[in-house]
Amino acid sequence: MNNSAVAATALTFEQKLDQLAEVAIRIGLGLAPGQELLMTAPLDALPLARRITEQAYKAGASLVTTLYSDDEAVLARYHHAPNEAFDKAPKWLYDGMAAAFKSGAARLAIAGANPMLLSKEDPDKVGRSNRAVSAASKPAMELITRHEINWTIVAAATPSWAATMFPNDSADVAINKLWDAIFATSRVGGDDPVSLWKKHDDGLQKRAAYMNEKRYAALQYRGPGTDFRLGLSDGHLWMGGGTTAGNGLYCIPNIPTEEIFTTPHKDRADGTVTASKPLSHMGTLIEDIHVRFEGGRIVEARASRGQEVLQKLIDTDDGARRLGEVALVPHSSPIASSGILFYNTLFDENAASHIALGQAYTSCLIDGDKASAEELAQRGANSSLIHVDWMIGSNKLDIDGITADGTAEPVMRQGEWV
Amino acid sequence: MNNSAVAATALTFEQKLDQLAEVAIRIGLGLAPGQELLMTAPLDALPLARRITEQAYKAGASLVTTLYSDDEAVLARYHHAPNEAFDKAPKWLYDGMAAAFKSGAARLAIAGANPMLLSKEDPDKVGRSNRAVSAASKPAMELITRHEINWTIVAAATPSWAATMFPNDSADVAINKLWDAIFATSRVGGDDPVSLWKKHDDGLQKRAAYMNEKRYAALQYRGPGTDFRLGLSDGHLWMGGGTTAGNGLYCIPNIPTEEIFTTPHKDRADGTVTASKPLSHMGTLIEDIHVRFEGGRIVEARASRGQEVLQKLIDTDDGARRLGEVALVPHSSPIASSGILFYNTLFDENAASHIALGQAYTSCLIDGDKASAEELAQRGANSSLIHVDWMIGSNKLDIDGITADGTAEPVMRQGEWV
Repeated sequence: MNNSAVAATALTFEQKLDQLAEVAIRIGLGLAPGQELLMTAPLDALPLARRITEQAYKAGASLVTTLYSDDEAVLARYHHAPNEAFDKAPKWLYDGMAAAFKSGAARLAIAGANPMLLSKEDPDKVGRSNRAVSAASKPAMELITRHEINWTIVAAATPSWAATMFPNDSADVAINKLWDAIFATSRVGGDDPVSLWKKHDDGLQKRAAYMNEKRYAALQYRGPGTDFRLGLSDGHLWMGGGTTAGNGLYCIPNIPTEEIFTTPHKDRADGTVTASKPLSHMGTLIEDIHVRFEGGRIVEARASRGQEVLQKLIDTDDGARRLGEVALVPHSSPIASSGILFYNTLFDENAASHIALGQAYTSCLIDGDKASAEELAQRGANSSLIHVDWMIGSNKLDIDGITADGTAEPVMRQGEWV
Repeated sequence: MNNSAVAATALTFEQKLDQLAEVAIRIGLGLAPGQELLMTAPLDALPLARRITEQAYKAGASLVTTLYSDDEAVLARYHHAPNEAFDKAPKWLYDGMAAAFKSGAARLAIAGANPMLLSKEDPDKVGRSNRAVSAASKPAMELITRHEINWTIVAAATPSWAATMFPNDSADVAINKLWDAIFATSRVGGDDPVSLWKKHDDGLQKRAAYMNEKRYAALQYRGPGTDFRLGLSDGHLWMGGGTTAGNGLYCIPNIPTEEIFTTPHKDRADGTVTASKPLSHMGTLIEDIHVRFEGGRIVEARASRGQEVLQKLIDTDDGARRLGEVALVPHSSPIASSGILFYNTLFDENAASHIALGQAYTSCLIDGDKASAEELAQRGANSSLIHVDWMIGSNKLDIDGITADGTAEPVMRQGEWV
């Protein structure tokens, strides 16, 4: 192949950034003309935030408001604030966000935070601060988890994140590698990423429809360190790719996304599960998680690193030690085949089948968004301040679907769809 | 003097920045231990915002939340958003800020915006956008103007602001000049800026006390293009320097501040006034303002540049063409003697005596914070969505105080206190 021909067709970094912004607005959010947009972003994601802002206005947005977070300010608090401070969260700001959603705003989050930011801070302060944020943001988060508005998450490479992923590379090389990985897994860089995404979404929709026809009562997992049976909630609904939000707008909430997922039964998880990847939780890396479930509840939890953070996490409330999501991802997904550990759930959850502790998505239940809290609990939907995904899939994991009459049917073998 | 001795005592830029942050927290805000802080800042003010965050936590702040504004995002809206967009403002965010103040948060604004940002944009869009922001932010602004919480404004040099002020200098030279001017006029760079500020505040308090003893019914201004009589509100109170906010905390709301000010009577302004400096209003420079008042109301307004923006400003509502503040500043103030036009009210209003269109400070009326809206209006306090200062003082302006029986007493001659 002629090199100059490659150069002529390859996109510049700026063009790829613009494509990613366009995918975020047109595919991720499906932003409606006249709609307001509330964006959150790390300060280091400023270049992508500006591209997204421009794409949003070009799509007819009335107003884009971006709330920037600053790692330095977070660390200043841990290093200088009084101990009592860590029970405080900006409830006024989360209530404001909930008000924005209720008045019609869409929600876009740029992921890119430093996964190791709080790894050296006092786990007690980290735990209390997380709990305060979870409690304060619950009304806003419920509008998100119930898909009442169109929302999406997209990623930007940041120096601290890149340094965690590629510790042996120079800063420049590391951030370029991370951008390349984000562009590739987010399906941008080619001729028509918007069409490519529509096709990919179609595939996920078909896979979810197949599982919904099957109506398995439970899934049975077998792999190294894992022998686990997980009941699905009554009237569960497998979802994947896009969804029509309560405000009528079609959005794809994660860019990238490779998973199909549903709501497990909070009282029906039994056996042992070993994580296949480390879990990066609010600045701490939790490694080699191994837990035992009885009647849906974690009764034993171990980790080779970050055990204290894991323990605080599952002690957040009663629902924090029960499951709120189960997701299936083939091991051949672009993220798994990249072989890269991203230290970020948005990517790593799409590299492997996973389960999530905490709050269930009521939209993964038939008529779940109209059901009362009591009815949801009766059908098995979990309730918690937290929602934390962790990876259990690998090319050594087999999954069976268990039908209502107890018959086992192979769903995945060695990490791939049967 | 020995050069090495100078080098040993001169402060580095970082030390001065830290002093400015300390003055902002300890003198400007008087932040209480355990108090929450809500800060707003242009993105270019990040280094100062980080210093202030650190000083706030060292002073015992429980939580500092900074809302950053991005000029590029504002321009993207003007260049790409649909025309209808400009009547929209983030009411959810301003309501959130009001909720923060009501729940005990202090408020710090870092000034440093590009004064010329919107100078080339459609004045109709600028006017509608300003009006939407004024309406949406009224509940939050009222808590500020009524001094119900401790608040302050401090400045950071930004490249765009420096370029406006020093158009003939390189970017590096311009921003250094602006930082030097900010440090000098904000009284930092010496041994003990906190003590220096306490002494300066004392001087302003004494000047205000003198004017309060005099209890003038009106002020009479005479100077080039100005022949103007301004009645003061019934039971007015001259203020200057610090004030004890409704939450009991003593704060100095402007860093720097050189003025003493009170509330004029909204129905008692007559004659012609010529501005002595250009007015930089939300991105447009309004030059050579000349207005005529009758019975408190502007009946004629001219400007050699920006007349359309001026007209839209005074058309905001009925109170926008009446006066809500009158302030006296000696021409020898450090800002005036610097000879620099800052294109920023925080500084320029402290270089010259001025008046403000729009909302009155009820705290400049005896028992004003307890009075009903009807009572305030009866006493002469103006009400409006806007509050815009413009400079009328110079070394050619004479001001007399008019006592209740009509006697004229000299207050200022050629811009200086008599």
